Amino acid sequence: MSNAMRQIAYLGPSGSFSEAALRASNVFQAGGVDPVPAKSVLHALDSVRNGEVAAALVPIENSIEGSVAITLDELASGKRLVIISEVVLPVEFSLLVRPGTKLSDIHTISTHPHAQAQVRNWLSANLPDADVIPSMSTSAAAAALMGENPAFDAAIGQALNSEIYGLEILADQIGDSSDAYTRFVIVALPGDLPEPSGADKTTLSVFQRENHPGGLLEILTEFAVRGINLTRLESRPTKKTLGDYYFSVDFEGHVNDLRVEEALMGLHRVCLDIRFLGSYPRHDGRKPVVRAGVTDTDFETAQAWLDKLKGT
Amino acid sequence: MSNAMRQIAYLGPSGSFSEAALRASNVFQAGGVDPVPAKSVLHALDSVRNGEVAAALVPIENSIEGSVAITLDELASGKRLVIISEVVLPVEFSLLVRPGTKLSDIHTISTHPHAQAQVRNWLSANLPDADVIPSMSTSAAAAALMGENPAFDAAIGQALNSEIYGLEILADQIGDSSDAYTRFVIVALPGDLPEPSGADKTTLSVFQRENHPGGLLEILTEFAVRGINLTRLESRPTKKTLGDYYFSVDFEGHVNDLRVEEALMGLHRVCLDIRFLGSYPRHDGRKPVVRAGVTDTDFETAQAWLDKLKGT
Amino acid sequence: MSNAMRQIAYLGPSGSFSEAALRASNVFQAGGVDPVPAKSVLHALDSVRNGEVAAALVPIENSIEGSVAITLDELASGKRLVIISEVVLPVEFSLLVRPGTKLSDIHTISTHPHAQAQVRNWLSANLPDADVIPSMSTSAAAAALMGENPAFDAAIGQALNSEIYGLEILADQIGDSSDAYTRFVIVALPGDLPEPSGADKTTLSVFQRENHPGGLLEILTEFAVRGINLTRLESRPTKKTLGDYYFSVDFEGHVNDLRVEEALMGLHRVCLDIRFLGSYPRHDGRKPVVRAGVTDTDFETAQAWLDKLKGT
Amino acid sequence: MSNAMRQIAYLGPSGSFSEAALRASNVFQAGGVDPVPAKSVLHALDSVRNGEVAAALVPIENSIEGSVAITLDELASGKRLVIISEVVLPVEFSLLVRPGTKLSDIHTISTHPHAQAQVRNWLSANLPDADVIPSMSTSAAAAALMGENPAFDAAIGQALNSEIYGLEILADQIGDSSDAYTRFVIVALPGDLPEPSGADKTTLSVFQRENHPGGLLEILTEFAVRGINLTRLESRPTKKTLGDYYFSVDFEGHVNDLRVEEALMGLHRVCLDIRFLGSYPRHDGRKPVVRAGVTDTDFETAQAWLDKLKGT
Repeated sequence: MSNAMRQIAYLGPSGSFSEAALRASNVFQAGGVDPVPAKSVLHALDSVRNGEVAAALVPIENSIEGSVAITLDELASGKRLVIISEVVLPVEFSLLVRPGTKLSDIHTISTHPHAQAQVRNWLSANLPDADVIPSMSTSAAAAALMGENPAFDAAIGQALNSEIYGLEILADQIGDSSDAYTRFVIVALPGDLPEPSGADKTTLSVFQRENHPGGLLEILTEFAVRGINLTRLESRPTKKTLGDYYFSVDFEGHVNDLRVEEALMGLHRVCLDIRFLGSYPRHDGRKPVVRAGVTDTDFETAQAWLDKLKGT
Repeated sequence: MSNAMRQIAYLGPSGSFSEAALRASNVFQAGGVDPVPAKSVLHALDSVRNGEVAAALVPIENSIEGSVAITLDELASGKRLVIISEVVLPVEFSLLVRPGTKLSDIHTISTHPHAQAQVRNWLSANLPDADVIPSMSTSAAAAALMGENPAFDAAIGQALNSEIYGLEILADQIGDSSDAYTRFVIVALPGDLPEPSGADKTTLSVFQRENHPGGLLEILTEFAVRGINLTRLESRPTKKTLGDYYFSVDFEGHVNDLRVEEALMGLHRVCLDIRFLGSYPRHDGRKPVVRAGVTDTDFETAQAWLDKLKGT
Repeated sequence: MSNAMRQIAYLGPSGSFSEAALRASNVFQAGGVDPVPAKSVLHALDSVRNGEVAAALVPIENSIEGSVAITLDELASGKRLVIISEVVLPVEFSLLVRPGTKLSDIHTISTHPHAQAQVRNWLSANLPDADVIPSMSTSAAAAALMGENPAFDAAIGQALNSEIYGLEILADQIGDSSDAYTRFVIVALPGDLPEPSGADKTTLSVFQRENHPGGLLEILTEFAVRGINLTRLESRPTKKTLGDYYFSVDFEGHVNDLRVEEALMGLHRVCLDIRFLGSYPRHDGRKPVVRAGVTDTDFETAQAWLDKLKGT
Repeated sequence: MSNAMRQIAYLGPSGSFSEAALRASNVFQAGGVDPVPAKSVLHALDSVRNGEVAAALVPIENSIEGSVAITLDELASGKRLVIISEVVLPVEFSLLVRPGTKLSDIHTISTHPHAQAQVRNWLSANLPDADVIPSMSTSAAAAALMGENPAFDAAIGQALNSEIYGLEILADQIGDSSDAYTRFVIVALPGDLPEPSGADKTTLSVFQRENHPGGLLEILTEFAVRGINLTRLESRPTKKTLGDYYFSVDFEGHVNDLRVEEALMGLHRVCLDIRFLGSYPRHDGRKPVVRAGVTDTDFETAQAWLDKLKGT
């Protein structure tokens, strides 16, 4: 590896979904990236914060299981990081075994609980009596299966795991939802804010001033009045008391868009705190439909009108 | 009159409510003002637009009869004028007669229809059989009463009318509502925008892009999201077709307030047109209650936060 | 007149716009109506309240001058009346003279101030030096012109006036706005609520609990959440103090529509008072566009779902 | 166990947080309950749906880690269940070992990832080099520790685990957040709707008609206009495509409250689907503050007013 390579951490081990996502990212494909496995989401993020790596790719959302709480919460607190890219991968599961194992040999399976949930139907139909042992990740289960005296007979994971660990694929595409996806984000220290691509998203953590009736309505109105479309909203406990929440929000647009600027400032004023977690190109390149009245031109025209009015 | 005097037109004739209002205004009391009667609201406003006078005082609202449509509509179209001051006068009516007339002599009375409406109870009780002839103003009725062969026996108007025209007050304070008020505004060509006093109002004419369901809600939300309190709202026909309206709006705050600036630009973006009719001190000096999040400091703090975020 | 005839009062005198409107109404054309002139809007409404007549037609709105304040205010207070029909007439003005009068003979003209405003351009071009004397109505001016020693040389009114009073039309269609309209309503005592026609409007007077920031937004939200489209909104002083308003509102729909029922009850809960002034067919028969979710079927389906849920 | 006992399933094994929660519930304390451990949330819910047990207690939310996705999603689909009670337990963690083990003997620890996250600080300070192996539950880790050849030296779990499995508590109250709580719900087949207690919550799954800008604002407005206070809101993927969400919502009030009835019907009309998941007493007995205009009395008064108006 040349010194000029940029190290980017991913949730390991090698062969994980996260590595596949990193390799599929536009950041990797631009070249010069050295992927580095991390033990956990926390390790990956900490290595960015500490300056050990240039960036980190972590899972943030899964069409089956929803948000990855640890990612949302770690980004919402501690030293601020910003998302510079997102990657979306289809989820495909395989039943992995040590070479020679047959379906009838399988009594115990290990996999990540999320993966288990996604192959529930296949397991009920094909291995209804198998015990399932949870693992920290599908890669970890695969690795353990090739280790000494594994405590289980099979692992459920990605096909990529089979290559890496020398496992055999006994059944392919066993996931229930053929259109399941996982979304990953690449985060870096602030300063790497990407230029607007014309099809961007922005992510925020929004902390209410207090939990009052209509508080969320107030927050959503700050977006609506500037014609901004939310793509994800989630209340997350603030880790203080039950019922005290912050909101994790994704919306269409870039911080350089004037409607986004004004909405951010509006939120800053009505909220206790607001954390900007980056503006970055959408994975699918879909441009937002911006209603009349909130384009940059509309904002500039209104400003010019006001300036003239005030004689400034 | 010295050339240094500023001429300010008012809805005449001499002795009218409007003259009394002008004399009570802070503009007059600052000195150097030469009051000039105008035949009508139109004449008064045109004389400002033509540069014949420095400003004009016209009635805009009456607690009994509501808005003065002609004033609202004339300010909403034509060459733009701005309100630089407001004056509020209590409405007090008297029964005026030629010297020597007794109550039993009165069979016909002349007054402005608005004044008539305000003394309805007194008339029912004291002169139930009298015919009432409408006049263009209470002053005009008083003047005509002292003219040759008046067509009526009494006029209803202000006490001030009696001094000017040599009339006698036969009954005083005959108005039904003791707390009735008339609001007047002094308008000038743009350029005379008063400095913020800390207790200001702003007036607008707002033209919707089209008359659609929820259109007014959209307009009001632009105010609400910036914590701006409306003090008057009125739909007025645009003089095009039945059902096509513009809105005449008063609200608390000065165009120099950052929340007002942002709301004005927001309205400019969502509306077909918006006419700024001035920011001026409230007649009663009542300061607005500005909620947390929309003070100038809040706006400046949010801007500084955004600037820092963007590294600008 | 047969005793079986229903007497309906109108703002007289005979030949007035109001009479023309009454004769154009579907109520009149259904037959059995005996039109009765009233001296004023007040007289007309009082005669309904007293049971002297079955109904009264009064002007409520004019595309040029806006709402007729006296009508709105009289309907908003006193014994409750309901609107059972609306009529819209185009406004057409003529210059009326005593037979033989020429344009060059005209130095003084009488007309109602509203009519004067509507022929301003014609007067400027054709009789720029004529004095205009205000009258209580265009009919009154016409009548006075044929009286003894009229104080003016011409009247501006409707062509109908000429037939009734034996006047000559010196100039026809002299109004500035060719598309000007006046809207009239026929009011009766409650009990005559018309059946839904499928293209109805409803009129309310809405009194706020107190004048607070966002109060009007709250009221409009009660309509918006049930998909109801306002067609007119006006703040009117409550005749108590300056700045204390009620709202006069027209909207699409009939009180029998379930979305209207729920909105009315919602307003009743959040407002100090709400006065129902009738549901009646639109003059133009235009059916409202009702969005998905607020049709009667939607309301009934939701109720059935809730009943089943609760096991009732 | 008598046949008269009601079986209630909980997320086992015996000694789990869930069992402790069940024993703390008002349902258990009312007597006649036979707690039955279930292997998973799915097993517990299925046993209710199949009629094997009368009810099931499952975790739904944790102040540290947020919602329990599997519980929300399982309640949002399949045969409908309703929440009849909620229980909130403080989270307290202990380091559990086989008798005789010292801190210096510990190199590998097993616990549930949620528990691991909650003792992060204690681990960093006291066992910085220990490897942590994820388990399906804290109980499972405790049980395995007492099994043959455990793969780890300690477990992190509740004190209750120690009694059940014969483990020793080496360190007590090692959780980072002293005010952490877990919320559990007891669910049953519909039909067991509890009577209003005066301090109730209601839970819904709300499915948008389509993902459109302002869609969530529309949903929140249905609550806000009836003065209903949300206590939890979460977007959850519908398991169809990335970016297609439903909302899991808790709010104050009981389905028998008239404001709740109207809001539910409003949501039913504007949403694709809405699933009612029960009204039940709040664990803390805190009564909602109901604003003027939305009490049952306000609803009844408005209905009576409307009925009188319509003559029904």
